[in-house]
Amino acid sequence: MNYLVTGGAGFVGSAIVKKLLKQGHVLTVIDNLNTGYIENIPKDVLFIEGDFSKNETIKKLNNAKFDGIFHIGGQSSGEMSYEDPEYDLNTNTLSTLKLLQYCVKTECKTFIYASTMSVYGEKESQEKFNEQDETNPKSFYAVGKLASEKYLEIFSKQFGIDYVSLRYFNIYGPGQNLDNLKQGMVSIYLKQFLDDSFDKVIVKGDLNRFRDLIYIDDIVDITIESAQNNKFINKIINIGTGRKTTVNEMLTLIRKYTGSEKKIVIEEGTPGDQFGIYANNKLLLSIYNKPLLDFDIGLKKMIEWIREK
Amino acid sequence: MNYLVTGGAGFVGSAIVKKLLKQGHVLTVIDNLNTGYIENIPKDVLFIEGDFSKNETIKKLNNAKFDGIFHIGGQSSGEMSYEDPEYDLNTNTLSTLKLLQYCVKTECKTFIYASTMSVYGEKESQEKFNEQDETNPKSFYAVGKLASEKYLEIFSKQFGIDYVSLRYFNIYGPGQNLDNLKQGMVSIYLKQFLDDSFDKVIVKGDLNRFRDLIYIDDIVDITIESAQNNKFINKIINIGTGRKTTVNEMLTLIRKYTGSEKKIVIEEGTPGDQFGIYANNKLLLSIYNKPLLDFDIGLKKMIEWIREK
Repeated sequence: MNYLVTGGAGFVGSAIVKKLLKQGHVLTVIDNLNTGYIENIPKDVLFIEGDFSKNETIKKLNNAKFDGIFHIGGQSSGEMSYEDPEYDLNTNTLSTLKLLQYCVKTECKTFIYASTMSVYGEKESQEKFNEQDETNPKSFYAVGKLASEKYLEIFSKQFGIDYVSLRYFNIYGPGQNLDNLKQGMVSIYLKQFLDDSFDKVIVKGDLNRFRDLIYIDDIVDITIESAQNNKFINKIINIGTGRKTTVNEMLTLIRKYTGSEKKIVIEEGTPGDQFGIYANNKLLLSIYNKPLLDFDIGLKKMIEWIREK
Repeated sequence: MNYLVTGGAGFVGSAIVKKLLKQGHVLTVIDNLNTGYIENIPKDVLFIEGDFSKNETIKKLNNAKFDGIFHIGGQSSGEMSYEDPEYDLNTNTLSTLKLLQYCVKTECKTFIYASTMSVYGEKESQEKFNEQDETNPKSFYAVGKLASEKYLEIFSKQFGIDYVSLRYFNIYGPGQNLDNLKQGMVSIYLKQFLDDSFDKVIVKGDLNRFRDLIYIDDIVDITIESAQNNKFINKIINIGTGRKTTVNEMLTLIRKYTGSEKKIVIEEGTPGDQFGIYANNKLLLSIYNKPLLDFDIGLKKMIEWIREK
């Protein structure tokens, strides 16, 4: 198959690119290298450096026909979206619109979209969310992702594009950017535990906060299968393990596997930080058969990767 | 007071401008004259012609301080939003973001937003919607308006801006553009009944479809009061009469008041047309005391206006 992947220089996008190449597909990759790394781009793809929210970048595609588009790229942090909401709107929403229009023009039929569990926001006394639950986005990032989901629904009805909106929960694993201390609980804690320049581990907020942590390889497999398995088509799907891991559990396991005895200091939480939600993933489990990796094992693999770096 | 009004050359915006001038306020008006008319701009306002989604237009404001912003402008038709979704996103969503950022920068505290009942979409077996009901936008227009509402909530929490999101239902009355046969049931039917170039009246779709029709003067009064009455602050509010008027009732009343005997021809509906929803307007009635005009009377006034033109 001939696929277009956006955000192919980032954590998730680059992992998808590698797997798709292994499967023998022909790939075009777009990335503006804003947060992604050029080293992540394999030599055997056609790489277009540019903002996929700009016409000049779309023009570079030269009306090439793709069997599917994986729209993985975009500003991906709720916290960062406050610093430049316009960039967030362009990169997460306008980009989707432009790529969907490109799809219609070039008769591409399959559009896989990296959405987010952030669209649920938070609701008092609810921890577990399913796809029919009310959305309540709290950041610019979540608002833009939700708008994109709605665009996909409209394009599906109007132009027959088959879409999948994958509401990723909290992704971790080898390849994650350890230098970004504003995104990814697991990577933030691991960085502090394993990097000698930190003499203690700072945890911002309550130890009872939790995440639904899903391993990068599972994300890759699910995302790729969603383009190839008809059961995913025209669905919004929670991509989580359905298991809660508290901050306390993360720290305990990291201590256990790293052997670090660094002191943990609890500080005040960052404004707008989520206490925690996790996935009702019945829909995913009903159409995807492989088991999802336990955090216990995924964490060990991630620590190995960091030590080998 | 010193107000900024966007869309001041359009149907609703120009009516608000006129009333605000009467009340003695100082006004700056922005409009790109895409669907508005320069004749609608009174001489005694500062008029800036331009797109409020563009930096160059915002720059022309010269960091002027306003007591409040009425963001009324924007592409306003669900049907038209399919023809240029990007323009819709810019004019309805990016514009709101830019104006909110301008608000923060210039310490403007009040932001009145013209939202829409379209955010509810349609749901089987539900006709009446209140502000807590789930939103389900079906057009690019509705998606963009809903995203703007969310932006307002974020800016309110983060920067203390007082907003009001007015979910306008179906507005009609003197000043409405009779030449646009894609927007406004009442104006579309009146045009066909009263203009001699039409020998019959074409109705696209079921006679049992209905609208919650609210008169332009009520919209103006509510919108202006929302900037001046603390009870409106930081609320999303349905602006409708809470009364259903079917297409059949509209046509019967128009026949009665115009005396026209033109033949009515029922054709197939336009794709995506709403069957009908109306407002649960309890919230509005609890904070706004004036009675809302009956359609019967409003229609007569509109017919008089057309005949005097």
